[in-house]
Amino acid sequence: VSSLFIRGRLLDSPSVITTALAGGVGGAKLLVGLDRALDPGRLTAIVNIGDDEEIYGVHVSPDLDIVAYWLAGLADTQRGWGIRDDTFTVVESLHRLGGEAWFRLGDRDFATCLYRTQQLRAGATLSAITDDIRRAFGIASVLVPASDDRVRTKVVTQTSGTLDFQEYFVRERARPAVEDVTFEGIRDAKPAPAVLPAIEGADRVILCPSNPVLSIAPILALPGVREALRNHPQVVAVTPIVRGAALKGPAAEIMRTMGIGEGAAAVARLYADFADTFVVDSSDSDQLRLVEELGVRPVGLDTIMNDHRASELLARNLLDL
Amino acid sequence: VSSLFIRGRLLDSPSVITTALAGGVGGAKLLVGLDRALDPGRLTAIVNIGDDEEIYGVHVSPDLDIVAYWLAGLADTQRGWGIRDDTFTVVESLHRLGGEAWFRLGDRDFATCLYRTQQLRAGATLSAITDDIRRAFGIASVLVPASDDRVRTKVVTQTSGTLDFQEYFVRERARPAVEDVTFEGIRDAKPAPAVLPAIEGADRVILCPSNPVLSIAPILALPGVREALRNHPQVVAVTPIVRGAALKGPAAEIMRTMGIGEGAAAVARLYADFADTFVVDSSDSDQLRLVEELGVRPVGLDTIMNDHRASELLARNLLDL
Repeated sequence: VSSLFIRGRLLDSPSVITTALAGGVGGAKLLVGLDRALDPGRLTAIVNIGDDEEIYGVHVSPDLDIVAYWLAGLADTQRGWGIRDDTFTVVESLHRLGGEAWFRLGDRDFATCLYRTQQLRAGATLSAITDDIRRAFGIASVLVPASDDRVRTKVVTQTSGTLDFQEYFVRERARPAVEDVTFEGIRDAKPAPAVLPAIEGADRVILCPSNPVLSIAPILALPGVREALRNHPQVVAVTPIVRGAALKGPAAEIMRTMGIGEGAAAVARLYADFADTFVVDSSDSDQLRLVEELGVRPVGLDTIMNDHRASELLARNLLDL
Repeated sequence: VSSLFIRGRLLDSPSVITTALAGGVGGAKLLVGLDRALDPGRLTAIVNIGDDEEIYGVHVSPDLDIVAYWLAGLADTQRGWGIRDDTFTVVESLHRLGGEAWFRLGDRDFATCLYRTQQLRAGATLSAITDDIRRAFGIASVLVPASDDRVRTKVVTQTSGTLDFQEYFVRERARPAVEDVTFEGIRDAKPAPAVLPAIEGADRVILCPSNPVLSIAPILALPGVREALRNHPQVVAVTPIVRGAALKGPAAEIMRTMGIGEGAAAVARLYADFADTFVVDSSDSDQLRLVEELGVRPVGLDTIMNDHRASELLARNLLDL
């Protein structure tokens, strides 16, 4: 029996709780599947906040918002980020006035960030605000930011110096070769209050197929998180790399230029100290042995989520492991 | 021959320069007429900034923006404020999330304020930013904020305490009876660099039919402005009050509750120390004698500007005085 406090509210002790670590579109897709496969409220998602940035005077939390929009059924699933049919009047008008407007933030998306900013200024925690937003969007699953403290991913590139995450990812379209990634503020940051209880109290923990360096690493780097995962008997990680490539985003390229290695097994190596099971794509069977050599149980599943049904199928297969 | 420096740019010395003091819709309407009646660049508008407010994290300058939108032909002339056909996605989405959203700021309007905010944070003056905006909108007339410093109009009400201007004007819809109006910061504020030269160098100065307490008084209260007007030989003020009522807004009601008096002549009394001519509406001929008793030359003109042609006609009549 597990219990989780979010803003002093005790979730009714569910029989089985699943906690997932996530960031980005790959994470959002699997969370949609888990949200559908589980009873309402049985899923807690711990979401990366290293991508957060103050842009246009508002606190943008790209990973929290991607996850919320996907779970709420509001996401632009073709584009991956943002809200379907959102307009871009503010950033386009700003651009016409001569303002820097490379970060495409839709008008509804802007309002989410503005709400977050207003509440932060009024003294609310990111955890509390995230819970407000998921409830306003009618999301049953619990969303927890990895930390209520300020952590900022910085990308050290070979050609363009050290960039803020959004400069690297959006302005430079993830093109500069990455030498290193650092998490500013990580030494002073604590996991958000619900993070460790959500891991410790979960019957299983799933690492979503998110970028291991940019989405998962900033969560793992928070004090106590890695240890809680090591102590957990059922941690399942899903590869974001299929046949040497990331389905979306720069994960494979970053792993190569940072010397982490290639292929799904290179991701498994990053998680080998705490992952009990590592899921590679069923088309990638040569990775199974490499994962096994790391002392991690390898499993092959169809990990490619082209639609919500595929997400739900993968989620059910993971829950059946 | 006059010269005006705006951001180090010397206007080519025009034969006749007109400078107008303005705020709000009444001011914007007459400025449109003057802008049409004068050769390009011959009009300088000194615009109230006492209504400015930080709202939604952006620096809102309602009077500067009303004037810019009217002069650019972008204004919603029915509503008075904002941009025609603007959308309200940001404030409506914010409201749906539970945020306070009583200040209706359109999405394009939001972008103007966001641009201003970004430039202010980068260290630009409100004068320089205002000049950027008017040029981006293709406005030939020069727009000058009354001050680059922070001045905030506070409204002391009989029933609701002391309110920020936008709380009084927008949230409370100008309904609470006004006991007094103060201008926070006025003692430390200076006129913007172009203000006194624009008055001193002008062949004529026109006070637009703007609210004398809320729009004109905060300009007059800046050090040196009233004296520059006293020293100017041709200052023409246009009444915002016609047959005892304001055409738009709470001017008449405020003048009554503050004990300033009723009718156009009560406005003339506020300007009597510097106004050479005071224009009352031609339907208001009983005010002519009252104005004359103040030692100000009274003139009757059709002051009601129902469309741009009427604005231009009034402007031409004023320029012919």
